[in-house]
Amino acid sequence: MPGKEKILEVRRIIEPYAHRTPVMTCTTLDTRSGSRLVFKCENFQKGGAFKFRGASHAVMTLPETIASRGVATHSSGNHAQALALAARMRGIEARIVMPENAPKNKIDAVESYGGIIRFCKPTLADREATLQKVINEYGCGEIHPYNDYRIIAGQATVSAELIEDSVQLDCLVAPVGGGGLLSGCILGARYFSPRTLVYGAEPEKANDAWQSFRQKRLIPADKPQTIADGLRTSLGSLTFPIIRDGATDILTTTEEGIIEAMKLIWEYMKVVVEPSAAVPLAAILEHPGMFAGKRTGIILSGGNADLFRLPWLEQQGGVH
Amino acid sequence: MPGKEKILEVRRIIEPYAHRTPVMTCTTLDTRSGSRLVFKCENFQKGGAFKFRGASHAVMTLPETIASRGVATHSSGNHAQALALAARMRGIEARIVMPENAPKNKIDAVESYGGIIRFCKPTLADREATLQKVINEYGCGEIHPYNDYRIIAGQATVSAELIEDSVQLDCLVAPVGGGGLLSGCILGARYFSPRTLVYGAEPEKANDAWQSFRQKRLIPADKPQTIADGLRTSLGSLTFPIIRDGATDILTTTEEGIIEAMKLIWEYMKVVVEPSAAVPLAAILEHPGMFAGKRTGIILSGGNADLFRLPWLEQQGGVH
Repeated sequence: MPGKEKILEVRRIIEPYAHRTPVMTCTTLDTRSGSRLVFKCENFQKGGAFKFRGASHAVMTLPETIASRGVATHSSGNHAQALALAARMRGIEARIVMPENAPKNKIDAVESYGGIIRFCKPTLADREATLQKVINEYGCGEIHPYNDYRIIAGQATVSAELIEDSVQLDCLVAPVGGGGLLSGCILGARYFSPRTLVYGAEPEKANDAWQSFRQKRLIPADKPQTIADGLRTSLGSLTFPIIRDGATDILTTTEEGIIEAMKLIWEYMKVVVEPSAAVPLAAILEHPGMFAGKRTGIILSGGNADLFRLPWLEQQGGVH
Repeated sequence: MPGKEKILEVRRIIEPYAHRTPVMTCTTLDTRSGSRLVFKCENFQKGGAFKFRGASHAVMTLPETIASRGVATHSSGNHAQALALAARMRGIEARIVMPENAPKNKIDAVESYGGIIRFCKPTLADREATLQKVINEYGCGEIHPYNDYRIIAGQATVSAELIEDSVQLDCLVAPVGGGGLLSGCILGARYFSPRTLVYGAEPEKANDAWQSFRQKRLIPADKPQTIADGLRTSLGSLTFPIIRDGATDILTTTEEGIIEAMKLIWEYMKVVVEPSAAVPLAAILEHPGMFAGKRTGIILSGGNADLFRLPWLEQQGGVH
C-alpha cells in the first residue's frame, strides 16, 4: 500500500505532466449547503479528469521493455482518455477496451489522444476477457483503472494538494466508483491531515461501495443504471480494504439530486463538470446536518460532460 | 481620464470585494488558433462578470449623502447584477432599469442580489427616459454601465491583473459593447504594458464600434440582433475617444463563429462562458494570420449563460 514517501515521490514524477489544479470556493453554494466548501477542480486536469494523475504515474514509471509494447486497459471513459494521453506523452501505444455504450464524447476524446479502441459488451466479464485477449496479442502492460497501487498513489496526490491549498479541512468528500480516487484520498488524508474525515459519495443506483462498506465484504455492482457513468464500476480487491478501514462513511444520492447538484455547479461556479463529479455536492445537500458549519473539501473529479445531452434539459423533455 | 495612479488606487479599493480571477491556458485551443492564448477568467468574478469591478468601485466611493438614497442604472444584465451585489455589500438600495426582453436568468440574478427592477422597452431612448424617472423619484446616484470614468477605471483593473499574471503579451482582445471593458483594457495596457496591442472584438450584427472606429465618429448601434446580448449596446461619449485613439483595430465575428467559440471554451476549458465572452476567441479564429505565434490575452468577460438555452442545441433544432 502506498506510504507517505511514495505519494511525495509520485507528486515529483507527475509534476512535469499533470496540472496542479486550482481550488475554488462559492458563496452561493456555501449558503445552500450550510457548509464551508472547498472545491478541488480536477475537471481542469489534463484529459479533463483526475484519472490522468494515476495514469501518467503508471505510464512514466513503466520499464522500457514493457513500455515499448504499449499499454492497455479497460475503462468506461476518463481513465481511457488519461491513459491514451499519458502514453502519447511517452511516445508509446495505448490500447483501450471500452464498453460499446460508452458516451460518444468520451470515445471521440480517446481517439483524439491517439488511443486505439477495442469495443466490448458492457459487462465486467466481457471487459476483462477482451482486455486479456488484447494483452495476449500485443504483450502490452496492463494499467487497470483503479485496482493498482500505482494508480491509487497517483490519485492520492489530489487530496495531498487539496490539503496543502486549504485551511484545515474537517471533512473531504470524493465520488466512489472503482474506488481509486476515494482510496487515494483516504491515504492522502491519513498522511497529510489525519484529523480530516473522508467520505465516499455514490449514486443510490450504483451503491456497491455503500453495501460493501456496511457488510464489510466486497459486493460488486449489479447492473448500475445511474447517470453518473464514471461511477458504475465496482470496488476492487486493493481499493476495498483501504475504504473499509479508512472511510468515515459512504453516502448515497438520488439521481435527481445528482442532476440538481451538477446544474448548481455549472450555474454558480461557472465550471463544467460531468455527472459523477456532482455526486459529492449532491450527497452534502442530501445530508445537510452532517456537514453544517464544517470546512469540507469536495473533489470535482472530471469535466467530460456531453454538451449535447444536458440532464436538466432531458428531464423536462427538451429545450424550451 | 483615469491615469496610472488612479488604476492602482482602484485596485486597492475593490480588493476586499472583488475576486482576483485566475488566468488559464488551453493546449487544444492554442493548437486550434495557432496563437498562445492566455484567458483572464472574469466569468469567475463576483456576480459572474467583470462588471463587478467598475460597479463596486463606483458604489464604494460614492459619498454617503448620495449613497443613502441608493444607486440606479439601466443595464441589459451583467452590470445590473454587479450593481445590485455591490449595493448590497454597502447596505444600500439598487434600482435597475432593464429591457423587458432581457434574459430570464439575468433578471432572476438581479432579484437574487436584492436589486429592485423597473422594466422598460428595449430601446436606448426608453432606457434613459425610464432611468431619469427613477432618479427623479428617489434621488439616487446614477451609475452608468460604461460611460463613466469610475466604471472605466474599475474595468481597467482586469487588464492590469492579466498583464501582471502573464509573460509579456503581444496582443490583448476584449469584447466591445458599450466599450467600458475595452477602454479600460486600453488604459491598463498603456500604463502597464505599452507594447501590447489591444483589439476589440464585436459581432458583425452589432458592429457599431467597428463602424465608429473606421469613420472616427460615434455611430450608435442600429437594432442589433446578435446572440451576444452583452454587446448590443452602443459606445459612449467617454469610451469612444479612448477606443478611437488607443485600439489597434476592431475585429468582427459571425454569429456561427461566436457559437462555435463558446462551445470550444466549454468543451476544452471546462468553463461556462456566455456568448459575449466567446467573441474574442471567435475573432481570433476568424482572423488566424493576425495572431499566429503571438502571445494573446483574451478576456472571458462573463459566465452568466442561460443553461436552458444552449445555442449549439438550438442551432440543430433540439436535443438529440
